[in-house]
Amino acid sequence: MLIRPALPEDAAAIWSIVEPILRAGETYALDRDMTEADALAYWLGADKETFVAVEDDDVLGTYYLRPNQPGGGRHVCNCGYMTSLRGRGQGIARRMCAHSLDQAHARGYRAMQFNFVVGVNEPAIHLWLSLGFEIVGRLPGAFRHPTRGYVDALVMFRTL
Amino acid sequence: MLIRPALPEDAAAIWSIVEPILRAGETYALDRDMTEADALAYWLGADKETFVAVEDDDVLGTYYLRPNQPGGGRHVCNCGYMTSLRGRGQGIARRMCAHSLDQAHARGYRAMQFNFVVGVNEPAIHLWLSLGFEIVGRLPGAFRHPTRGYVDALVMFRTL
Repeated sequence: MLIRPALPEDAAAIWSIVEPILRAGETYALDRDMTEADALAYWLGADKETFVAVEDDDVLGTYYLRPNQPGGGRHVCNCGYMTSLRGRGQGIARRMCAHSLDQAHARGYRAMQFNFVVGVNEPAIHLWLSLGFEIVGRLPGAFRHPTRGYVDALVMFRTL
Repeated sequence: MLIRPALPEDAAAIWSIVEPILRAGETYALDRDMTEADALAYWLGADKETFVAVEDDDVLGTYYLRPNQPGGGRHVCNCGYMTSLRGRGQGIARRMCAHSLDQAHARGYRAMQFNFVVGVNEPAIHLWLSLGFEIVGRLPGAFRHPTRGYVDALVMFRTL
């Protein structure tokens, strides 16, 4: 599997990954009704570097890397990762996160922060913990899950 | 003192409050070199409701209220407050925060979150604690203070 910067011609493949995750509304605090144009403008925004994970010309995952805050907070980065439905269970999120940690380190970031990990998203939490992230904050009832109601969100952090 | 929605003609007064705080770079994770136009576009952005605290036609403080996250996170709001140099020590931040809590409650928000309270900004931390906020997260070394180096930032949260 190759992880490389996203190109304009990856947009349709990225949308095919993002759309079902957005529409489900279970893991990201994003508007579930976002249009394709708005979602791609967000995921490929000028504030971000966006990557794709590709196997045999098939885009199986995508992630972005950006400064988490401007000014005095810009030495800490933030990432978001999405894996395609057909790519699940193959360690793609883990490989994208490891790649992002390397990229972040190479760019001089001192830490990586996830601002809003849905507290009932156990697979993600376990994955980030296994990659060295710590839970540094808990936001009570901060996420309204479509079937489980108000659940906590976690802030996770890893020094680079 | 009157707290009311900001009007277009308040822009110059708002900039006179924001500029020294931005340039000092001690309390907000914002680009210290931001232009007036960019700073006003941020503080008065379409995602925010912006208010001013006025006494005898003198704008002594300003704050914004916005959803902290879209989608499943939009029931939690976020605010930012700034007090003019000449308004310091008069309880203006406290009155703006109390006003914002009322406004947030009236709009149906369930909680208010501050994402990035600089950990050495003791006056602000004490004020938010006295207004019912709790420290729910600590981000190690997440803020580069212009004179004190890397310091922690706090996540503070209050149910409404």
